[in-house]
Amino acid sequence: MLSKNQIKLIKSLEAKKNRKREGLFVAEGPKVVGDLLRAGYTPHSIFSTVSRPDAELITDDELRRISFLQHPQEVLGVFHISTIPQPSDISHQTSGLSLALDGVQDPGNVGTIIRIADWFGISQIFCSPDTADVYNPKVVQATMGSLAHVCITYCDLVPLLSKAGVPVYGTLLDGQDIYQQPLSENGIILMGNEGNGISPEVRQLVTNKLLIPNFNKNTETAESLNVAIATAITLSEFRRRF
Amino acid sequence: MLSKNQIKLIKSLEAKKNRKREGLFVAEGPKVVGDLLRAGYTPHSIFSTVSRPDAELITDDELRRISFLQHPQEVLGVFHISTIPQPSDISHQTSGLSLALDGVQDPGNVGTIIRIADWFGISQIFCSPDTADVYNPKVVQATMGSLAHVCITYCDLVPLLSKAGVPVYGTLLDGQDIYQQPLSENGIILMGNEGNGISPEVRQLVTNKLLIPNFNKNTETAESLNVAIATAITLSEFRRRF
Repeated sequence: MLSKNQIKLIKSLEAKKNRKREGLFVAEGPKVVGDLLRAGYTPHSIFSTVSRPDAELITDDELRRISFLQHPQEVLGVFHISTIPQPSDISHQTSGLSLALDGVQDPGNVGTIIRIADWFGISQIFCSPDTADVYNPKVVQATMGSLAHVCITYCDLVPLLSKAGVPVYGTLLDGQDIYQQPLSENGIILMGNEGNGISPEVRQLVTNKLLIPNFNKNTETAESLNVAIATAITLSEFRRRF
Repeated sequence: MLSKNQIKLIKSLEAKKNRKREGLFVAEGPKVVGDLLRAGYTPHSIFSTVSRPDAELITDDELRRISFLQHPQEVLGVFHISTIPQPSDISHQTSGLSLALDGVQDPGNVGTIIRIADWFGISQIFCSPDTADVYNPKVVQATMGSLAHVCITYCDLVPLLSKAGVPVYGTLLDGQDIYQQPLSENGIILMGNEGNGISPEVRQLVTNKLLIPNFNKNTETAESLNVAIATAITLSEFRRRF
């Protein structure tokens, strides 16, 4: 049986300031909770509507009271936020391909991008401080467990990119057709805000401007691609070449 | 000022059976409403919090009462559902590349796929009857206006694909690496349900099995890609070749 304090704590973790204060975040469903446990995340508490050795048994009704999902999924885990590694050794962390998110604000987009990165073997994502918090319940859920496989670092992108020593790729309106451009095995791929794209200070540090061309020959067509979709197309094009 | 009957009608259009009975659907925001008007969709009524010649002026509070969005966007339009063209002349409709959705159930995914199709110049999407209804407010919103540029036909996919006379591409677990496979300029690209993929009856009609390979070398990795992401990667690979 859940105590009032347990319910209050869990519901409070919807807000970033509370997650920061408590050092805790919530993940839901057997898949996501299982992936985090296997990856070595330390659970604070786990609640489940089916019996499992590592969880407190609760009723469907209790799960509904603590869940952030429209359709709660059997298990809810509260995890300790692991110490976020600081990007002190940039050269190590930026070997191979990595991603940088500059102000991506929709939690579903950030979660989906983490899942895509995992699929394409990207192990490091740098996020500007105004990118949606990775421990937001909506981000955690949208990663479908991939949060456990990708290292995510929040930092000021300007010093990071200035010292990166690898090509910085950005998709920009004045970029060159991605399918025709030379791409390298090392580099940072930069994705921008949903409405405004890459911020002006960061844009200056892009060394290779790319464009995903619109193939529609009509005047009336989609004006843009969703940022997660653009990330997927970009990573697909990098990976198929090598 | 909105009447009770107007509010009741609009709110009722969240349900498919009411949209079907009334022959109406809702679109919101200046961008989406504008794209539908430019594409020739016939408005039943338009409501706006800013003065415009084609709309009834309403207050922010009234818009909140009729909107399906968390953050209502200035304009709400009620449109007549255009007569859905029947796929009588398959050979004409399937020239070039087209998409077929087999049981894609999440409205956000269907809307996003329509937006991606528009970007990649796909003008025809065939949907199985159990695919999310394109006039669902969440689908309409996720298309970001691309609903106005793409022809969408609901039909039984089995007879359609049997008589198509063009290659039928499907992404399947036992498919061949999409980056290495020959792809044609004509064909139907089939995408399946979020959880179960392409249904068994339809799968039999796939002539070219494709696979988007996972590039992560670790054992623990993302198990799948979201269906909209997979659609984007597949269309990108087809389009870059021609």
